[in-house]
Amino acid sequence: MDYNQILQEIYEEIQPYASMGAPASYIPELQKVNPDHYGICLHTLKGKEYAMGDCDERFSIQSISKVLVLAMGFSRLGNQLWKRIGVEPSGNAFNSIFQLEMEKGIPRNPLINAGALVMTDILISTLSHPEEEYLTFVRELCGCDDIQYNEHMATSERETGFLNAAIVNMLKYHGNIKNDVEEVLRFYFLQCSIGMNCRELSRAFLPFADHTHPFSFGGTTLTTSQVKRINAIMQTCGFYDEAGEFSYLVGLPGKSGVGGGIAAVCPRKYAVAVWSPRLNAKGNSVMGMKALELLTTKTAISIF
Amino acid sequence: MDYNQILQEIYEEIQPYASMGAPASYIPELQKVNPDHYGICLHTLKGKEYAMGDCDERFSIQSISKVLVLAMGFSRLGNQLWKRIGVEPSGNAFNSIFQLEMEKGIPRNPLINAGALVMTDILISTLSHPEEEYLTFVRELCGCDDIQYNEHMATSERETGFLNAAIVNMLKYHGNIKNDVEEVLRFYFLQCSIGMNCRELSRAFLPFADHTHPFSFGGTTLTTSQVKRINAIMQTCGFYDEAGEFSYLVGLPGKSGVGGGIAAVCPRKYAVAVWSPRLNAKGNSVMGMKALELLTTKTAISIF
Amino acid sequence: MDYNQILQEIYEEIQPYASMGAPASYIPELQKVNPDHYGICLHTLKGKEYAMGDCDERFSIQSISKVLVLAMGFSRLGNQLWKRIGVEPSGNAFNSIFQLEMEKGIPRNPLINAGALVMTDILISTLSHPEEEYLTFVRELCGCDDIQYNEHMATSERETGFLNAAIVNMLKYHGNIKNDVEEVLRFYFLQCSIGMNCRELSRAFLPFADHTHPFSFGGTTLTTSQVKRINAIMQTCGFYDEAGEFSYLVGLPGKSGVGGGIAAVCPRKYAVAVWSPRLNAKGNSVMGMKALELLTTKTAISIF
Amino acid sequence: MDYNQILQEIYEEIQPYASMGAPASYIPELQKVNPDHYGICLHTLKGKEYAMGDCDERFSIQSISKVLVLAMGFSRLGNQLWKRIGVEPSGNAFNSIFQLEMEKGIPRNPLINAGALVMTDILISTLSHPEEEYLTFVRELCGCDDIQYNEHMATSERETGFLNAAIVNMLKYHGNIKNDVEEVLRFYFLQCSIGMNCRELSRAFLPFADHTHPFSFGGTTLTTSQVKRINAIMQTCGFYDEAGEFSYLVGLPGKSGVGGGIAAVCPRKYAVAVWSPRLNAKGNSVMGMKALELLTTKTAISIF
Repeated sequence: MDYNQILQEIYEEIQPYASMGAPASYIPELQKVNPDHYGICLHTLKGKEYAMGDCDERFSIQSISKVLVLAMGFSRLGNQLWKRIGVEPSGNAFNSIFQLEMEKGIPRNPLINAGALVMTDILISTLSHPEEEYLTFVRELCGCDDIQYNEHMATSERETGFLNAAIVNMLKYHGNIKNDVEEVLRFYFLQCSIGMNCRELSRAFLPFADHTHPFSFGGTTLTTSQVKRINAIMQTCGFYDEAGEFSYLVGLPGKSGVGGGIAAVCPRKYAVAVWSPRLNAKGNSVMGMKALELLTTKTAISIF
Repeated sequence: MDYNQILQEIYEEIQPYASMGAPASYIPELQKVNPDHYGICLHTLKGKEYAMGDCDERFSIQSISKVLVLAMGFSRLGNQLWKRIGVEPSGNAFNSIFQLEMEKGIPRNPLINAGALVMTDILISTLSHPEEEYLTFVRELCGCDDIQYNEHMATSERETGFLNAAIVNMLKYHGNIKNDVEEVLRFYFLQCSIGMNCRELSRAFLPFADHTHPFSFGGTTLTTSQVKRINAIMQTCGFYDEAGEFSYLVGLPGKSGVGGGIAAVCPRKYAVAVWSPRLNAKGNSVMGMKALELLTTKTAISIF
Repeated sequence: MDYNQILQEIYEEIQPYASMGAPASYIPELQKVNPDHYGICLHTLKGKEYAMGDCDERFSIQSISKVLVLAMGFSRLGNQLWKRIGVEPSGNAFNSIFQLEMEKGIPRNPLINAGALVMTDILISTLSHPEEEYLTFVRELCGCDDIQYNEHMATSERETGFLNAAIVNMLKYHGNIKNDVEEVLRFYFLQCSIGMNCRELSRAFLPFADHTHPFSFGGTTLTTSQVKRINAIMQTCGFYDEAGEFSYLVGLPGKSGVGGGIAAVCPRKYAVAVWSPRLNAKGNSVMGMKALELLTTKTAISIF
Repeated sequence: MDYNQILQEIYEEIQPYASMGAPASYIPELQKVNPDHYGICLHTLKGKEYAMGDCDERFSIQSISKVLVLAMGFSRLGNQLWKRIGVEPSGNAFNSIFQLEMEKGIPRNPLINAGALVMTDILISTLSHPEEEYLTFVRELCGCDDIQYNEHMATSERETGFLNAAIVNMLKYHGNIKNDVEEVLRFYFLQCSIGMNCRELSRAFLPFADHTHPFSFGGTTLTTSQVKRINAIMQTCGFYDEAGEFSYLVGLPGKSGVGGGIAAVCPRKYAVAVWSPRLNAKGNSVMGMKALELLTTKTAISIF
C-alpha cells in the first residue's frame, strides 16, 4: 500500500470541498484559527508515519478528548462505568438534553457531552491529581512532553458554556454528578482545550489500533478486549448524530471535535488524524470526513 | 480455529441463560413455538459449515428480512435510496413513531420498522412481481428451493399489527409511501413470515461476509462497496436500541428478529446464525446475544 | 348592551384581517368554499338573536363536532369517561401523535383528534344507531330538521386521512379503541362533515351557556355541573395549541374547526358562532378569533 | 351565601383526605413544617373575610409568587412581555426542560419555572431595586408590613436547586436571560421564600378578582383588561400539568405552590387562599384542591 500516493490523491480530490462549511462559531478562540488549514497524518502498526499538509500545527482537540477520558476512566472503573453511562448511540444532536430528561440522568454514551461530563466527574472522584494525570496520559500516548492545556480557551469556553452548564446541572439533579458542578466544568473544558497536531494525534490513537502491544500509558492500562470495546463505542457514537453516516461512508471507529480534528483507527492496521477547521451542519470537519471516506475507498480496507 | 470446539463450549456456557427471557407475546403464531430451541450454525468463507443444536428446524425470520429487503432495494435504486431513508441509529425503541413525526416521515434507517416499510414500498414500485422476486432472491441466497411464505402468520400479524398500520399511515401522511397502505403492509408481513433454519440463514448471510465473490442472486447485484455499506448499517442499526450494546459486546454487524433469530457476519471470515426464541426486554434473543458475545471472545476476532 | 351595534363595529374593525390566512388545504372539499365569507350570530339567554354577514350559509363544522360528541358520550358514561381520556390541554399541535406514544394511548383530552376518536369509539359501543342518534341530537340542539351529513366530504376525508388513520391505529395498539378502526374513522369523518350555518351553530351552543334550563336533547341529558365541566374543557383545550392564546385574548370557552367556524359561550349570558374560512398557522379562523376578541373587549364581559 | 357555613362543611368533608399525599421532599426547609396544618380564608369584594383553621400561620408561598412577579413585569413591559414568554399551557411536568429545548428557549408561560425565571430576569433589568420593590408590592397587596424573605430557605433552595440551575442555563444558552444566572437564581428563590398566611394571601389576590377598583400597588399598576388576562393565564397554566383537572373540577383561576398553598379568584366575587402541606403526585395540595372543588360545588358559582 503506497500511503504517500494515497494521501496525495486524497489531497487533490478534496479540493472542491476546501471552502465548504464554517468553523465553529460559538467558541470565540476557535474563530481565530485560519480556516484554510488541512493536514492528515497516518501511523501504521509497522511503525511508519505518513504525513501531508499542515501536520505540525497544533489545534484544539475539543471532543476528541472524550475518547482519552473514557480510556482513563474505563481503566480505573472497568465495567462499573456502565452503571452511570450507556453505550448506545444518541440518535440526536450532540447537545441534546431531552434524552437526559427521559432517561433520568444516564447519558446515552461517553462520547456525547453529557457522558463526558459524567466521565469527568468520575475522574475527579478517582484520581488524586486529575489535571496532572490527564496531561501525563496524553503526553505519554503521543510521546510528546510539551502538550499543554490552553487555560485561556478553557476559561473562555466556560464563560459562554451555558449549554454544558445546563447539562451538568441536569446530571447533578438526577444524582449522576458527585462533585461540584463548577469543578467538573473546569476540568471538562481543560480536557477539550489541549492542543495537538496531526502527528501527535495520530500517534496518540495508534495504541487503540494496536492489539499486539499492551495498552499502558501514564497509569492507564487497558486489556485488548477493553481497547476493542472503546473502538466499538467510537464506531457507533463517535460522530454525534452523524455516527451512522460516518460508519456508512468511512467504516472506521473514530471521533471528531469542533476544532476540526478527526482521529480514527483501522484495527490491526493504522491510526489516522486529519484536521480542517470548516465544519458541516452536524459539527464535523467537511474535508476531514471526505478525506477519510477516500482513504478507506482507496485502500479498500475498512472494518466491514 | 476449531469452531466445533468453540460452538460446543458456547453451548455449555450459555446454559445458565436457557430459561431467561420470554418469546414475543404480541404475535400469536410465535407463541406456539417451543421456547427451548437453541441452534447455531457458522459458514466460513473457505466453505466449511459448523452446526450445533436445532439447526434444521425452521423459524420465522421476522426482522432479519429487513437486511434482505435492503439488499434488494439498494441494488435497484443505489444511493437514490437515501433520499427516503437515513442511515443513522434510531436511538429509541424499535417501534418508535416519535422520531418519524419529528423528522417528517423520513425513517432513521432501513432496519427499523418504519424504514423497512418504506423499503417495501420501494420494492412494490420497482419490481414487476415483488412477492415472487423476493422469494427467488432468498432461495438463491441460501441455496434452498423450498423457502416459503407463511401466509397464515402474515395474515395473523396484519390482523393485530396496529402499530405497523399506524407507522405506515404516518409515512403515507408525510408522502413517503407511494402505494396503497394495505398492499405495503401485506408484503411487509409476508417478508417477515418466511421460515428458515440456522443453516439456511447462515448461508444466506455468507455473501455479506464475502468480499471475494460478486454478490449476485436472483436479480439482486451489489458491489463490494455496497455490501460493506449494508454491513455498516447492520453494525449501527441492527439491534434496535440495543445496537450499541451488541456492537460493544459482540463487535460484528448483525440483525435480530423477534422470532429469536440473529444473523451476523465477520467480514472476510464467516457468517453465523443463531436461534433461540426467548427474548430480552429489548426484543433480542437472550441466548443468541450471549452466544455471539462468546463467539467473538473465544475466537478473539471481531471487526474491532 | 346593543349587540347589533357591537357586531357592526366588529365587522368594520376586522376588515384589515379579511385577506389574512388561508383555508385548510389538506381537505379537498374545503378548498371549494369561497374564502371571503364572514358571518357571526349571537343568541342570548333571553332569547334574542343577533346576526351579521353570511349567517345563512352552511359550512362544514369539522372539529366543532368534538364538543357535541363529548356531550353525547359524557351523558352516557359520566365520569367513567375519564378512564380513557384526560382533561389536560395538549400543549402540542392538534395532530400530535407523540403524546399518545408517551402516555400509552390515553389522549390528553376529548377535543383533540385522538380524544375525539376514542369518544367516537365509545359512542359506537354505547349507542344502538350511532349515526342516526348523533344527527338527531344535533338537529334537536339547533332546532333544525334538515341538518345532514355530507357523505361525499366524509369519504373524501377518509381517503386522504392518513394522519387520523395513524392515530386510530396507535390508539388501537394501546387498547383504547374497541371497535374496528375503519368503522371508527367512518363515523368520525361523518361527524365532522355536517353542515351548519352560524345561526344554527350558535343556537346549538346556547344550552351550554344556559344553566337555567335542563340540558336534554335527543336522548342526551347533562346536569348543570356536567355542562360547566364541558365548558371548562372547551376553555383549556378548545383551540389546539392556541388554547392559551384564545383564553388570554377572548376569555370564553369555545371550539374551532378547520372549516373556519368557531362556537363559543359566555356562561349565563350568550352563545356565539362565527365563520370565516381563512385560517392562521395553528388552524383557527383569523377573522373569527379577532371578532371574538373584539366581542369580549367591547362588551367588557368575559369569564375573567 | 353563608360562607361560614360552607367553610365549615368543607372542613368536615375533606377530613378523609387529611393524611393523603406528602409534603415536598426536595426542599429541606419545607420538610420541617407540620404537615397536618389546614387553613382556608376567603375575602369577598364586599369586604367580608371568612376564615377557618390555621389561617394565621405563615407558610412559604413558593410558586404562588409567580403570579405576583407576572403582575409586576406585565405592568412594566405590557405586551412586549410576550416576545419572551408564551401564554400556552405547558402540558408537561412543572419542571420540563424538553419543551424549552424544542421551542428555543421561549418558555410556554410565565407560571412554570422557566417562565418565572425569565420574568425574574426581566424584573432585574427593569427595576432599580428588584428585591425591595418586590417586597413592597407584596406588602401593599396584602396590607401587611412585616412580610419578609426567608433568606435561609432561599439559600438552601439554591444549594440543591440543580434543576432550576439547568433551566436558567438553557434559557441563557438560547439568549433569553440577560443577567447573570446566579443573580437570577438568587432573586427567584427569594421570591418563592416569602412567608404569608391564608388571610394575607387571600387579601393579596383580592385585587385580581376585583374589576371595580384600579389595580395599583407599590408601583405596579394594571388595567382591568390586564388583570383579566392574568386570570386567564392562571386558569390555563396555574397548576402545572394538572391545570386541566383544576379547571375541570374547580373552575376558577388559581395558582398553587409546593409549600401547600393555593390562591384562587372568583372574578367579581371573591378571592380565596387555602393551605395544607401534603401534596399529590403532581405537586398540588391534596386538601387544598378538594376544598376548592367543594367550594365551587357548594356555592354553585364558578367561571363556567
